[in-house]
Amino acid sequence: MRNAKTLEYGFSNEEFEIRLQRAQELLYQNKLDALLITIPSNLRYFTGIDTNFWESPTRPWFLVLPLSGTPIAIIPDIGENIFKKTFVEDIHTWASPNFNGDDISPLKSLLESLPSRFGAIGAELGKEMSIRMPVLDFGLLRNNFKFNIVDGTSLIWALRTVKSFNEIKKIEKVAQIVSEVFEILPTIISVNDSERSASIKVKREILKRGADNIPYLPVVSGKGGVSQIIGNPTHKLISSGDFLFIDTGATYDGYFCDFDRNFTIGTVSDELKRTHEILWHATEEGIKNLVPGAKTQDVWKKINKKIEDFGFMVKGEGRYGHGVGLQLTEPPSISSFDNSIIQENMVLTIEPSMEYKPGKIIVHEENIFVSKDGPVLLTKRATKELPVIS
Amino acid sequence: MRNAKTLEYGFSNEEFEIRLQRAQELLYQNKLDALLITIPSNLRYFTGIDTNFWESPTRPWFLVLPLSGTPIAIIPDIGENIFKKTFVEDIHTWASPNFNGDDISPLKSLLESLPSRFGAIGAELGKEMSIRMPVLDFGLLRNNFKFNIVDGTSLIWALRTVKSFNEIKKIEKVAQIVSEVFEILPTIISVNDSERSASIKVKREILKRGADNIPYLPVVSGKGGVSQIIGNPTHKLISSGDFLFIDTGATYDGYFCDFDRNFTIGTVSDELKRTHEILWHATEEGIKNLVPGAKTQDVWKKINKKIEDFGFMVKGEGRYGHGVGLQLTEPPSISSFDNSIIQENMVLTIEPSMEYKPGKIIVHEENIFVSKDGPVLLTKRATKELPVIS
Repeated sequence: MRNAKTLEYGFSNEEFEIRLQRAQELLYQNKLDALLITIPSNLRYFTGIDTNFWESPTRPWFLVLPLSGTPIAIIPDIGENIFKKTFVEDIHTWASPNFNGDDISPLKSLLESLPSRFGAIGAELGKEMSIRMPVLDFGLLRNNFKFNIVDGTSLIWALRTVKSFNEIKKIEKVAQIVSEVFEILPTIISVNDSERSASIKVKREILKRGADNIPYLPVVSGKGGVSQIIGNPTHKLISSGDFLFIDTGATYDGYFCDFDRNFTIGTVSDELKRTHEILWHATEEGIKNLVPGAKTQDVWKKINKKIEDFGFMVKGEGRYGHGVGLQLTEPPSISSFDNSIIQENMVLTIEPSMEYKPGKIIVHEENIFVSKDGPVLLTKRATKELPVIS
Repeated sequence: MRNAKTLEYGFSNEEFEIRLQRAQELLYQNKLDALLITIPSNLRYFTGIDTNFWESPTRPWFLVLPLSGTPIAIIPDIGENIFKKTFVEDIHTWASPNFNGDDISPLKSLLESLPSRFGAIGAELGKEMSIRMPVLDFGLLRNNFKFNIVDGTSLIWALRTVKSFNEIKKIEKVAQIVSEVFEILPTIISVNDSERSASIKVKREILKRGADNIPYLPVVSGKGGVSQIIGNPTHKLISSGDFLFIDTGATYDGYFCDFDRNFTIGTVSDELKRTHEILWHATEEGIKNLVPGAKTQDVWKKINKKIEDFGFMVKGEGRYGHGVGLQLTEPPSISSFDNSIIQENMVLTIEPSMEYKPGKIIVHEENIFVSKDGPVLLTKRATKELPVIS
């Protein structure tokens, strides 16, 4: 896979045909007449639409996948010409924003015109989904409507969690770019940097190597350890004796990598070095167990056992990884509560964490593609020893 | 304002106290017992929380502003330590994700414990809002609930559309950074670039000058003009005779600028040059009319009239600008459908567009702060003549 020729952007129409066909099979199995899509990552998955116009919440965009036939886009007129470049041919537009009008009526009219075999439409109502339209408009859609609107979330995740070869290549590309930047990190940042200036240097290096965006980049530093891992970088200076945590959600052609690296600035405690090594082994354990047919719960338990074998008590039920793709995090969760079966061609993170003393946490993370022969690392593996920045 | 000392990140607690107090005044006027907040930009507005963890849709985050008293955060435990750094002191957490559990019950219990004076809670149900939680969970909240949940959107926008001095300074800072990059654009990109490589250069320059992120950056080029303005850059090479459109939503400390610039690669038609100049005058007209007390509809009409004075027929009802702040686009709209009154300390874009021949569009955009004495440009004004890249 590493030797594949230069990656093209987007996907062939054939790939979208396959996604549509699978969706329609699942619609039939789930007794649904159509699937209603509003969320950017779902719109991109089913059509290939490539825009960040989602940053503007002014207008809703709708895609309807009917039980048979081709997808139907019902979108604001400003989107017509970019939608015409996608796999979708049946495009309806309306003038939006339109404060006197009603942003839901074009969608409702179209849905009412669909044949009703089962009397139900699936929508993005469940876990890890927030429908992208005003709740009031969704109420208008539901009111006096020909169809019941039911949860179609599991259907969507069944499709999206299992990746195609081309999806995996895009995740690998961005994971390799970020891995390279992490490798040279000790040469590009120093104790003269603040968390924020370090983050800007990292972003510029990631872009230079050809990624598109870096929507997520916590840079967290603290004497002897850190107490949180999700905040944006601050003006705090990175100082000698600090532990430094950097997590990265960068994208290439819409696909995310999601992994972190840890560093020390000069020397840190033997306790922290030792914790780092234990977590490295716990990560190995997680990676090793990402094989088709494994249960997410069992992978979680095995990682926990590995940590406990080193004499640590694990507290809490924190998850130790998740899917990754068109979103930074996707189902399934490597968690005690998740009873998913790991499937061939899933792409997952393994992300064990430890609170090694009160309020001090450490997290490792790698990205893995589950091949039929077992786990394939998409990131360049972190070193067992904590790298030092001087 | 330009001479203000180095901008600090974030805001004083006093500023959040003022936002809270105004929200509570509006809650009382609107006969609401509390406001429920889930959307990242609203969470940041009322608390100062600074994270991009929203890229992960796995967990909902809730903030409750009660009619009296202090804000209450009900958030996943992973967010506790960054929430502790904010203005909010009353923080409740639960273990999330938790597939066996129920991500709504901690919120529901807390809301049920609030006093009911009016029997109603406001939530993000209306225009330009998409509540950030699963619809199924929102249904569980509504079911057998002590309060009616009604739309609180207008209350939120009443607060957010009018900016504080410190908010305006942040928008100005990022608008100035991007203006500088647009000024040097002819020296950093060339006919050897693709749209995509040009976009990467622009992003790296914006970061170098101290912005945090560039979530939105369409780069669109085409012989003699462009037919869309929202798509992400492609691998198309920028070529002699092309018209080049670049729009930018970049952020500093969470605040967006949103404006575009147009260029020609070598020579383009006199028609396009002339259109550019007309639109420049239309933009002037829009800027000039951004004064406290003006109606958005009237500004829209005046821009249209200016275009028509040059002999062009305006077709359609497209909007000519909008609010900008913690989002790329916010209310109000400079539109025929919007009947808002422009207020002191709003920050708005003026964004007229023309379809100068079938399928070919051109858009200008500037960012303006409405002072009590009239409009103040936050961007460096585009030149009347189309700049040339060789």
